[in-house]
Amino acid sequence: MPPMSVDQFTLVVNMFSFTIAAMGAASVFFFLQRGDMVPRYRAVVAIAGLVTPIATYNYIRLFDSWNESFTLINGAVHTTGHAYNDTYRYADWLLTVPLLVIVLVMVLDLPARQARLRSLVVGLQAAEMILLGYPGQISTNVETRWLWWGAAMVPFLIIVQQLYGALGEAVAKQPQGVRGTIVAARFMTVLVWCFYPAVYILPLVGVAGPTAFIASQVGYALADLLAKAAYGCMIYTICARKSQLERDGQPVAPPAPLRAVRA
Amino acid sequence: MPPMSVDQFTLVVNMFSFTIAAMGAASVFFFLQRGDMVPRYRAVVAIAGLVTPIATYNYIRLFDSWNESFTLINGAVHTTGHAYNDTYRYADWLLTVPLLVIVLVMVLDLPARQARLRSLVVGLQAAEMILLGYPGQISTNVETRWLWWGAAMVPFLIIVQQLYGALGEAVAKQPQGVRGTIVAARFMTVLVWCFYPAVYILPLVGVAGPTAFIASQVGYALADLLAKAAYGCMIYTICARKSQLERDGQPVAPPAPLRAVRA
Repeated sequence: MPPMSVDQFTLVVNMFSFTIAAMGAASVFFFLQRGDMVPRYRAVVAIAGLVTPIATYNYIRLFDSWNESFTLINGAVHTTGHAYNDTYRYADWLLTVPLLVIVLVMVLDLPARQARLRSLVVGLQAAEMILLGYPGQISTNVETRWLWWGAAMVPFLIIVQQLYGALGEAVAKQPQGVRGTIVAARFMTVLVWCFYPAVYILPLVGVAGPTAFIASQVGYALADLLAKAAYGCMIYTICARKSQLERDGQPVAPPAPLRAVRA
Repeated sequence: MPPMSVDQFTLVVNMFSFTIAAMGAASVFFFLQRGDMVPRYRAVVAIAGLVTPIATYNYIRLFDSWNESFTLINGAVHTTGHAYNDTYRYADWLLTVPLLVIVLVMVLDLPARQARLRSLVVGLQAAEMILLGYPGQISTNVETRWLWWGAAMVPFLIIVQQLYGALGEAVAKQPQGVRGTIVAARFMTVLVWCFYPAVYILPLVGVAGPTAFIASQVGYALADLLAKAAYGCMIYTICARKSQLERDGQPVAPPAPLRAVRA
């Protein structure tokens, strides 16, 4: 790789540091506020509060790996020979992506059996999506990368189909005052998640060099902040409003029985 | 040992990082949710929440030891001369394995005297199993390894006998809605615990080389994740459901008095 500029090196250091602080702060907020929810939403806020500490940990690892691989000394960026391990991200995603999609199912207040089934389906598809991406990510062969990219897109599309198809009716029937936030959280999930497969194929379509590399590092951090911290705040808002509805004796679940589920 | 590939080195790094994050996240979840149990199950969830931070700590040690022993520099994996200390695991297991089997006794809600006796028996056998395994693990002599392996299998079989024999009746009489999860947790414990003596004998039956070594590192991490984090989630689920039963005024303990115990 051609050498990066001092500004590029520093931008990544500062972006990673920002991400560590933001994810850590979000974690503290979720921990502190969890107990103010009515009992049924405490586990949801706890799970939103697991995602951000995992991300905090992951960005500490990335920050350390970055500084082990590149060093800014005497006004220039040098490589040390140590590999920068960008694939730490997969360990994070394998844990957090299933949790992120499961909390969206949890806030819908489906009947217990249906909630378990839908959580299982989207959670397993999310884990499968990450696992299928990994072999392509570590490969330098163009065809291998395309193959695994394509394989990982299948569970991604199944998740989108679940969120808009099977769960669409439940979303549409959510009580006023939370429906808009749920629709927005679902839309943001799908939109931000599209960023990851797009960055994955950059080297396959000839976009390379330090600028593309730096853009992908900063872009991943931004996407993670939206998909985890900002999304977690939306999930928290839904839980806080539904807690208020329950305290006021208002219905929090979709009014009509949903389509029967065969397990 | 022949040199390992870059992908093998990176796989272990990522697997250890995944395990640190997953065990840490499980810990946070158990700490946060503990207070939502009825009082009698708070200590159980607290103990499940001790096992996973011990594992988090252990995998940080293994991660550091791995990176001190092997280094990925200029695109190839080199040994540094520092020993990789795989036997950190024994410090973890000596603490966590007794706790894991004791929490299973605790969720059965046996009469107090019987619960103490059974916890003591399985807890001591579990500690003995780990202590007896250690001298064989650090030996390079084939006969010594077989000897201690055989010695450690005795307490293992006593634990299995306790879980299915002495405690079998109490398991069978658990209330509907938790019995299935208790049976599954007991089965998973025995099944996953079989992995450890199997890996132990791999070098004794001629399975060696970097692929076997990498497979054992990844396999241990997977087995630990199942035996600690996933199993902890099952114990948590049992406690959450039994808390709900108690709040609803339903019985949580086996209905009939169990066989008398002579202490």
